[in-house]
Amino acid sequence: MLLNATMFSEPNKDILDRREAIVGHLARLVSSDGLITDRDECRAYETDAFTAYRKMPLAVVLPASTNEVSAVLKFCHDHGVKVVPRGAGTSLAGGAIPTEDSIVLGLSRMTGVLEINYDDRFIRVEAGVTNLKITAAVADRGFFYAPDPSSQLACTIGGNIANNSGGAHCLKYGVTTNNLLGVRMVLMDGTIIDLGGNSHDSGGLDLLGVVVGSEGQLGVVTEATVRILRSAEAARPVLFGFSSCDGAGNTVAEIIAAGIIPVAIEYMDKAAIEICEAFSRAGYPLDAEALLIIEVEGSKAEMDATLERIISIARANGVQTVRESRSAIETAAIWKGRKSAFGATGRVADYLCMDGTVPTGKLSYVLAQITEIVKRYGLRVANVFHAGDGNMHPLILYNANDPAEQSKAEAAGNDILKLCVEVGGCLTGEHGVGLEKRDLMRYQFNRIDLDQQMRLREAFDPKSLLNRDKVFPIDC
Amino acid sequence: MLLNATMFSEPNKDILDRREAIVGHLARLVSSDGLITDRDECRAYETDAFTAYRKMPLAVVLPASTNEVSAVLKFCHDHGVKVVPRGAGTSLAGGAIPTEDSIVLGLSRMTGVLEINYDDRFIRVEAGVTNLKITAAVADRGFFYAPDPSSQLACTIGGNIANNSGGAHCLKYGVTTNNLLGVRMVLMDGTIIDLGGNSHDSGGLDLLGVVVGSEGQLGVVTEATVRILRSAEAARPVLFGFSSCDGAGNTVAEIIAAGIIPVAIEYMDKAAIEICEAFSRAGYPLDAEALLIIEVEGSKAEMDATLERIISIARANGVQTVRESRSAIETAAIWKGRKSAFGATGRVADYLCMDGTVPTGKLSYVLAQITEIVKRYGLRVANVFHAGDGNMHPLILYNANDPAEQSKAEAAGNDILKLCVEVGGCLTGEHGVGLEKRDLMRYQFNRIDLDQQMRLREAFDPKSLLNRDKVFPIDC
Repeated sequence: MLLNATMFSEPNKDILDRREAIVGHLARLVSSDGLITDRDECRAYETDAFTAYRKMPLAVVLPASTNEVSAVLKFCHDHGVKVVPRGAGTSLAGGAIPTEDSIVLGLSRMTGVLEINYDDRFIRVEAGVTNLKITAAVADRGFFYAPDPSSQLACTIGGNIANNSGGAHCLKYGVTTNNLLGVRMVLMDGTIIDLGGNSHDSGGLDLLGVVVGSEGQLGVVTEATVRILRSAEAARPVLFGFSSCDGAGNTVAEIIAAGIIPVAIEYMDKAAIEICEAFSRAGYPLDAEALLIIEVEGSKAEMDATLERIISIARANGVQTVRESRSAIETAAIWKGRKSAFGATGRVADYLCMDGTVPTGKLSYVLAQITEIVKRYGLRVANVFHAGDGNMHPLILYNANDPAEQSKAEAAGNDILKLCVEVGGCLTGEHGVGLEKRDLMRYQFNRIDLDQQMRLREAFDPKSLLNRDKVFPIDC
Repeated sequence: MLLNATMFSEPNKDILDRREAIVGHLARLVSSDGLITDRDECRAYETDAFTAYRKMPLAVVLPASTNEVSAVLKFCHDHGVKVVPRGAGTSLAGGAIPTEDSIVLGLSRMTGVLEINYDDRFIRVEAGVTNLKITAAVADRGFFYAPDPSSQLACTIGGNIANNSGGAHCLKYGVTTNNLLGVRMVLMDGTIIDLGGNSHDSGGLDLLGVVVGSEGQLGVVTEATVRILRSAEAARPVLFGFSSCDGAGNTVAEIIAAGIIPVAIEYMDKAAIEICEAFSRAGYPLDAEALLIIEVEGSKAEMDATLERIISIARANGVQTVRESRSAIETAAIWKGRKSAFGATGRVADYLCMDGTVPTGKLSYVLAQITEIVKRYGLRVANVFHAGDGNMHPLILYNANDPAEQSKAEAAGNDILKLCVEVGGCLTGEHGVGLEKRDLMRYQFNRIDLDQQMRLREAFDPKSLLNRDKVFPIDC
């Protein structure tokens, strides 16, 4: 946020001058079609889903194997060339935006499914495999991979690991870090290292855990082993329409406080309901001020028992409408509406998508404050988010062609993220820090915290060549 | 394993010579009763539950606050004094055994419950609070803390974090790392740092994750915030007696492969059944070759539905007896028998307790191999362990007064742990590496892995003063 001219450090002139020689070397390290140098073709890699900034990289390298990744990184390490790893480029925080003096290292050609083991419930894939393809590979045997970001059709497991991605169904099953068993990773100096394994624990220090969510700064993951889970017997989303945001917020807080863990609790305010319903015709209640989509799963008896407790909490908080999905088609429509929320919003306005977390007990308070903050800047907001784990996504609506409005939107976003930290939450839930929230890190962490994080980063990449200018304030 | 004279590095003579001055300084840094220098009183801190080795430390320091821990560590850092952190000393791998030139830093005086928040489902305690006291603090409101090591009456949350402790009920709820939200920790140079928080995620690198399981080598945790969960409506353990170990092992593998997650799946072989039944009179079937204790929980309908699937798998694998607990008293007896297994075994023989993990699909194979290995050394073994997550605990029975038998037992243990690694598992499930398995780390990790782990350790404790001589081979 508060993006400006100092967003990137000065490009290394020496590297820019040596571009031709560098590109010539890189060409020898990757198999055919593995290097893009044409400016027009590189344009697709200038930015990511954050889109606020664009930079033309030195070149785009698309290795076809771990060994090629190793050769490229070793060369870049030895010659001081910065590297920006990239999965599908769906980052909402600018995590995959290159700099002029860096190469983009794209994993899009590494899409192999390497091993499926149903006995021990894991699957091993290359890092460029999309999130949804992992589930597709095991679905016919009744299994699935749990974390389900809304971008799951496009985003890759490598990017999911870099951002510790979540999704609507992570309330019950945990986020990426809870479902990852091992990785093969290449360090910046070209060393290939295996972290974790196929099963429980691994002895020694938990290097795997620290790689998850490290936004491409510790190494380049080329293979991942993830846990697969047995799909539930059945699942049933239920729509809860409320005449007040407080009623919905308090319902979430009370469900969590009661220790009930549905598969998903998603929240939409009136603006989001209208936008999503217009796009998806999912049957969301248009007269509601706030909507909860709560999904339960299991046997019919289990679902009925859990729903009974949830409905009783919702009634005590004045719920207006309760509508259970009665068919697979209806269920698909309900989730399609929710998962298309960002795209649907993009059709009606430009928006900044925030990604902060707050304790669920503070949801109602924070929602009211967000409305106040955005109103103060003369803007509008739509709220659609993973309420069960307090992971908020206020979408601040503005006109991107009006620089004054853009500044206001960014300032409002800053205020909202600071609010999240103030109530005991944090700057990011699942989108990462990237470029977007880098300069707010000082608000979440003190000097001691940041110093220790930088020391840990140096233990992996002493020259800080991997995804420099992201996550940590430039002068950190 | 293969413990010998080079188990510890040479004590630092200079430190031994300066003992009096060091102790004099330390006395000024902690409140009254915070320093033990009397040799007889120090004897209680010479070893831990591993008991294979004893060393008299320089002194024992028992700080009463985070600030006192900070002052002590800063002094030791500045003067090059090694520090061995200690919770309750229940380590089964020698993790808390001191060296002659180190001080023991015990957390036993830091036992405060600092905050309980039911809305956001967490509790914050000092590091010396025992595992069971955490649950006791929230039980009247129907909550509990999930990881339940058998030593939970004595072991502390600080030790649990250092070892990423598990327990019988971790199959469903995860181990320590899955239930820890944040810590306050003191680095070796005295810096106080807060990692994680009260809720989901935290931005930046996951320092908290790497601290869990780091066996006291990255810092001294003084406070912990852990998630509390709502206790299930009801729970029911069921005993499954098999006439063959294969039948029991395959039942476990098939339950896991089917994606069924009971709360616990515990395994006992004939030797363990006899030992535990003699001690606890829990009603274990004495005619069985192998026993599974499988616990399900939830509403009656849920338990019945899950049990039906489990019983059908067990029947297909030739189960002889199936007996459900019919009362709270019976349930308590069943669990008391299991949780007293190590103690009960200690009454009939000396034993070495192994702690390796294997993929559940390999359980039957590994159990048969363990029998072969131990037989080859002319010894006996009892197996009692967390089968659901493949965390094995072979207890090798031997006579500790016979040095030849001790060597054989250690050699058999080595063979068993190597077997675990060979089938795709690992050296340690929940007891840590400590002194015991330090020299086997090379078997699990290659040079590259160990180098990266050492770099990460240096990023926290550059002088390697914290719990030196543990976890990593001495010449690492």
